[in-house]
Amino acid sequence: MQEVTLGIDIGGTNTKFGIVSKEGKILAGDTMSTVAYQGKSVETFLSDLYKASEALLNSLGASEYKIIGIGIGAPNANYYSGCIEFAPNLPWHNKIELVKLFQAHYPDLSISLTNDANAAAIGEMIYGAAQGYKDFIVITLGTGVGSGIVANGELIYGHDGFAGEMGHNITIPNGRLCTCGRKGCLETYASARGIKQTAIELLAATNEHSELRQYLGPNFSTTHIHQAALIGDKIALEVFEQTGKVLAMEMSNAVGYLSPAAFFLFGGITKAGELLFEPIRRYFDSYLLNIYQNKIKIYPSALDGSDAAILGASALIVKKLTPIHS
Amino acid sequence: MQEVTLGIDIGGTNTKFGIVSKEGKILAGDTMSTVAYQGKSVETFLSDLYKASEALLNSLGASEYKIIGIGIGAPNANYYSGCIEFAPNLPWHNKIELVKLFQAHYPDLSISLTNDANAAAIGEMIYGAAQGYKDFIVITLGTGVGSGIVANGELIYGHDGFAGEMGHNITIPNGRLCTCGRKGCLETYASARGIKQTAIELLAATNEHSELRQYLGPNFSTTHIHQAALIGDKIALEVFEQTGKVLAMEMSNAVGYLSPAAFFLFGGITKAGELLFEPIRRYFDSYLLNIYQNKIKIYPSALDGSDAAILGASALIVKKLTPIHS
Repeated sequence: MQEVTLGIDIGGTNTKFGIVSKEGKILAGDTMSTVAYQGKSVETFLSDLYKASEALLNSLGASEYKIIGIGIGAPNANYYSGCIEFAPNLPWHNKIELVKLFQAHYPDLSISLTNDANAAAIGEMIYGAAQGYKDFIVITLGTGVGSGIVANGELIYGHDGFAGEMGHNITIPNGRLCTCGRKGCLETYASARGIKQTAIELLAATNEHSELRQYLGPNFSTTHIHQAALIGDKIALEVFEQTGKVLAMEMSNAVGYLSPAAFFLFGGITKAGELLFEPIRRYFDSYLLNIYQNKIKIYPSALDGSDAAILGASALIVKKLTPIHS
Repeated sequence: MQEVTLGIDIGGTNTKFGIVSKEGKILAGDTMSTVAYQGKSVETFLSDLYKASEALLNSLGASEYKIIGIGIGAPNANYYSGCIEFAPNLPWHNKIELVKLFQAHYPDLSISLTNDANAAAIGEMIYGAAQGYKDFIVITLGTGVGSGIVANGELIYGHDGFAGEMGHNITIPNGRLCTCGRKGCLETYASARGIKQTAIELLAATNEHSELRQYLGPNFSTTHIHQAALIGDKIALEVFEQTGKVLAMEMSNAVGYLSPAAFFLFGGITKAGELLFEPIRRYFDSYLLNIYQNKIKIYPSALDGSDAAILGASALIVKKLTPIHS
């Protein structure tokens, strides 16, 4: 029997899950709607998720595979408490004791829960570009901005399980208003929404021609900015310049605390490649204290894509059951 | 025979050393000049330090005590390399392979070196107010501003041994010019020099009466600011207000990375007590992301004082030889 893990990523729209081999291959995967459970109980959702996961295992031939643990990634999840404390984007707004609920159904399995960004960091360490690294930071650039921090080979959870909220650090004092109610958080500049806002502010400040003007509307996205930058659109290029600058400012402050060997950036916007990475690297080195200069790497995630969340959740269990502590 | 450690704190002016019991009591201590070795080799300095340390042990009765290790705190010291990389305030400006030199003289002893702030953090954890804490940050407020970070019960050194340089994080973008060549570092506001500069800027901006005006001169110190604040001097109180505000801003960013259970502040200025701590706490809670509010403590160091540096250095060895990992 081959030992496998079940990786589950609970998102606001969909929940993805997959059976993952020890080598990090998704042997079988499936998706179910999360949003369809609006108005239904979390127990109903989980009951259907258990059935769908078991069906997935059966599709592979249940007698050949043994699930050794279940890793779960979810927004606002807390590793220590095993709970989703309060997730505004999920159908259930009360505290969900997710590990306890899973454990009741699967009493013999190892169950772990963490938030999306921490799962991304562990996934990167176990299966991705951070293999062999003991000190690194993964930054997830999506609807929000998250971070997962590894130091001394271990994920940093802090005293309460909430460490690694880099996206809500105040990078620009008195800067843009954030959904958290504070001003100048990194997320207000480096999330998809923040990047679009930078574009809109630049467009509004000039009459200069830009490809972006025709895309402005309800479907305006960072992909449009990427495409316009590829054909040399000045305003689109300036969006990457300003995004890179703010990201680099906060990354240089992260270094003063943690001195990681590398940063790994994760999320759709990283598809822009050097359009994004070149300004980040340039500003980053200019902001760093001299003792840190020219030695800290900045890479794209090797796991980025639709499988990453499942692999990150699965890696939680691999890390827990086979620690790679030196 | 009682097992003891030798704790050594190498400073720019003096080097303090002491024989420390496992309970954290300095059984005997002494001081020698560092600055007197200007123009002499580091080997000459160390040879005299070895002799003075051995004389100290003999003064206790060498047959009753066994030194199990030597812990050394020094500016710009690197735990991983065992070297002082470059210390502008010491008589020797080249790289000093300090652990290697000590080990050659004491081949059978455990020798560890770290910088002052990391030693303060370990000292606080082993002998001071951070006993029992697994996630905390010590901030040293002196000529410079340093920090020692403990997460998951271990000191965070980063990939290169240089983690924890919070004093050189840019808290105020484009703020005051720092000795490091960059602008707006925490140190330019929260070091003794930074605090005095705040006072001078406030005095220069108004004709309001202040006790501080008579003290302004080459001997002007933070003690004068403390004394003036105690009798209600408005400008002196405003200095504490502004110092607390900048410290709280950077501390709130530290929380986004590390979510410590507590901060411990170390250094002469902390003698001002609530004059300093009250504004820090007030601003700190106002800057924090909601998930962190009202749960992170801010305390004065319990080790502060002339013995702290020796205890911190000694604690390095205690921590190394008897890890308290969970």
